[in-house]
Amino acid sequence: MTSERIARATLTAIAEPGDALLNRIIDHLGPEETLTIIRTSRLPSNLPVTPKELQRLDHWRIRLATSDPDQDLAICNRLGGRLVCPGDPEWPTTLDDLADHRPYALWLRGPGDLRYGCLRSVAIVGSRAASPYGLRMASDLAANVADQGWTVISGGALGIDAAAHRGALAADGPTIAIFANGVDIPYPASNERLFAEMAQRSLLVSESAPGTAPNRLRFLIRNRVIAALSRGSLIVEAEARSGALNTAAWARKLSRVVMAVPGPITSQTSVGSHKLLREEGSILITRPEEIIEAVGRIGTDLAPPPYTPVLPRDRLEEVTRSVLEAIPARGSAGPAQLAAKAGVGLNTVNAKLGLLAAAGFIERSPSGWRLARQARAPQ
Amino acid sequence: MTSERIARATLTAIAEPGDALLNRIIDHLGPEETLTIIRTSRLPSNLPVTPKELQRLDHWRIRLATSDPDQDLAICNRLGGRLVCPGDPEWPTTLDDLADHRPYALWLRGPGDLRYGCLRSVAIVGSRAASPYGLRMASDLAANVADQGWTVISGGALGIDAAAHRGALAADGPTIAIFANGVDIPYPASNERLFAEMAQRSLLVSESAPGTAPNRLRFLIRNRVIAALSRGSLIVEAEARSGALNTAAWARKLSRVVMAVPGPITSQTSVGSHKLLREEGSILITRPEEIIEAVGRIGTDLAPPPYTPVLPRDRLEEVTRSVLEAIPARGSAGPAQLAAKAGVGLNTVNAKLGLLAAAGFIERSPSGWRLARQARAPQ
Repeated sequence: MTSERIARATLTAIAEPGDALLNRIIDHLGPEETLTIIRTSRLPSNLPVTPKELQRLDHWRIRLATSDPDQDLAICNRLGGRLVCPGDPEWPTTLDDLADHRPYALWLRGPGDLRYGCLRSVAIVGSRAASPYGLRMASDLAANVADQGWTVISGGALGIDAAAHRGALAADGPTIAIFANGVDIPYPASNERLFAEMAQRSLLVSESAPGTAPNRLRFLIRNRVIAALSRGSLIVEAEARSGALNTAAWARKLSRVVMAVPGPITSQTSVGSHKLLREEGSILITRPEEIIEAVGRIGTDLAPPPYTPVLPRDRLEEVTRSVLEAIPARGSAGPAQLAAKAGVGLNTVNAKLGLLAAAGFIERSPSGWRLARQARAPQ
Repeated sequence: MTSERIARATLTAIAEPGDALLNRIIDHLGPEETLTIIRTSRLPSNLPVTPKELQRLDHWRIRLATSDPDQDLAICNRLGGRLVCPGDPEWPTTLDDLADHRPYALWLRGPGDLRYGCLRSVAIVGSRAASPYGLRMASDLAANVADQGWTVISGGALGIDAAAHRGALAADGPTIAIFANGVDIPYPASNERLFAEMAQRSLLVSESAPGTAPNRLRFLIRNRVIAALSRGSLIVEAEARSGALNTAAWARKLSRVVMAVPGPITSQTSVGSHKLLREEGSILITRPEEIIEAVGRIGTDLAPPPYTPVLPRDRLEEVTRSVLEAIPARGSAGPAQLAAKAGVGLNTVNAKLGLLAAAGFIERSPSGWRLARQARAPQ
C-alpha cells in the first residue's frame, strides 16, 4: 500500500465526502501533503480560503488525531473489500464530472468491477415509503434492464432502492449499492441479508471509511455519486420532497438522463415523479425498453460493443495478460481459480476481469468467466 | 324559418358531417343553391371534383329524395331543441378553425348557450372501458373545473365521458355533450338518464339531424367538433388505440392544448395517455388547477373579463336589450319569467342570456340570472 493510498484512506475518514476545499488542496499538493497541511493548519498562500472553510480544516485536524487508516484498511480487507483510488483501473472516470466534489477514494466490497459495471448502468431510486405499485415497478424494471446487461445502481435504502437491487439480483444481473455509510455497516439493518448477498454477488460502494455512520447530510452528498456513476437516473416513486429528487437534480446538473415512472395522481409517492415530468422535462418511462433507449441514446461510444476486443492481446499490461491467459480455452473459471493460476491476489483478479470484459476479451457465464467468442481465436 | 336554415337542416340529414366537398360548394353557392346542385348533379365548372367525390354527390342525391327537414325540425322543437346555423349569435366562431370540415349546422337541446359555454371550456374525454381510477379522476377533475365556471365538453360515451359530464353536473357546473347521433337518440341507452338531465340543465349538441344513428365513422368525425369547441382537450384514460387519441390529434392540429392524466404503467387504459405524454409533449395533469392554468394560458382575450360589459347597453340589438331589461334590478329571474316579461320565446331568451353573460351584463346566480355588479349602475 503506497503512502498516497493510505493518505486517501485517511481523508475518507476525517472529512465529509466531496468537500470542495479539500479537493482543491489535493489537486494542488497531492493527498499526502494535504494531510500535512491539515495537521499543521498551514495552508499554502496561493489557495484562497473562506473563514467557514478554515473551520472545516479545524474539524479535519481534530479527527485526524484519532483516525487509524491501517485499521480501516484491515477491516475492509477482512470483509474481502478493497480501496479504489483515482487512477486505479477500477476507478470510474465518470466521477471526474463531479469536479471539486469528487470522492477522495472509494471503499468497495464484492466481486463486481466498479468501472466496468458503470459503463452501461442506470440508477433506479425512489421513496423509502414506497407503495406496493412502486416497489413492484422498481423490481420489475430493474430485473428487466439488469437482464439485458445493464447495471442497476441504487442507494441501498428501504423501499424503491432495495426493490431495485433485489430485482437486479433476481435476474442474476449486475447491481451496485452506493452507501452513505461505511461498507462494513449494514444500514438499514433490515436490508442486512440483501447487502450480504450483494457483497457475495455484486458490489457495495462507499466514499466514507469503514465505521462511518450514515446521517442526513451524508445521504444527500451520496446522491451525487449515484448520479455521476450512472448514465441516467430513473425515479420510480418520490414524494414532493423526496431525496430521490436530489439525485435527479444531480443527474440533470451532470447532463445525465433523468427519467421518471408515472403513477396514479392520487398517490403521494408519485407527486415527485410527476413534478419531474411536468416541470423538468424528464423522460416518462412505461417499459424497460424505454429506459435502455433513453440511456443508450447518449454516449453509446462509452460502451464497447460486446465481445469485440478493442486492444490486441499483446498490448495488455503484464498482470492483466496473465489473468487473461489463466482463463481456460474451453469452459469457464471463477476468480479464486484464476487468482491461483495467474499467481495474483483475488482483488487484482477481480479488477482485471472487469477490464478484460470491458475490453471485450472475456464474458460472464453462469459458472464464472470465459473467453468471449472473438477472443477465442488467437490473435 | 328561412329557406337557408331549412337547407342547412337538410344538409345535416343527407351528408356525413364536415364533408370538405360539400363545404366548398356551400362556400361557393350558399346552402340553398347547394341543394339544387345535389338534386341536379350539375356541379359548377369552376369547382374541381375527384371521381370519388362525385360518388358522394350521388349518395346525397339519393338521400335528399327521402329527407324531410320540416319533420326533423318538428321533432327537435317537440324536444325543446333548436337549430343553430353559422352566423347565429349562438354559433361558436371557433368552429371556423375546422375550415373545410366545419359543421353545416348544429342541433341543440338544453338551456345552455353554446357559444357562451365554449368561451371557457375544456374537453374531458377518454376510454369507454375506463378503470375505477380513471372514472374517479374524470369525475373529480370535471367537478373541480366546472365549479370554477369552466364548461366540461365531452362525447356522452360510457366510461370517462359520462363520468366527466356527471362530475360537472354534480358541481352544478356547465357541461356540453357532443353526440355522434341525433339529439333525439339517447345513445348509449344506459346514459339515458344522464342525457335527460343534461337536456334539462345543460346542453346536448349534434351536427346530424334527428333520427341519425351513430356509427364508427361518425364517432371519429364528431371528435373534431369536441376538439374545436374547447380551449383544450384532457385525455383522462385511453388505450393504445382509443378514440380519445383521435380527439387529441384534432386538438393538436387545431392548436388547442392537449393534456393527459398519467396512471399506473401497468394499466392498459393509461397506455394512450402515457403515449401522449412521452411522444407528443402533451401536458401532464395532476390537479384541476393545472388544467385551468394550461387552457387559461392561451387566448385569455377570447374570454371577456368577468362582469365587465364590453358593449354599451344602448348598442345592443333590440331583442337582446329587451331580455336585459327584463332582468330585475334586484334579485334574479329564470328564463321562463324573462321570456314572459320580454315577450319572446324561451329559446331566444336562452340564447340572449348567454350573449349578455358573455358580454358581462349579467351573471348566473343559484336562483337564475341577475345583473352583474358593474351593469347595475345605469350607463
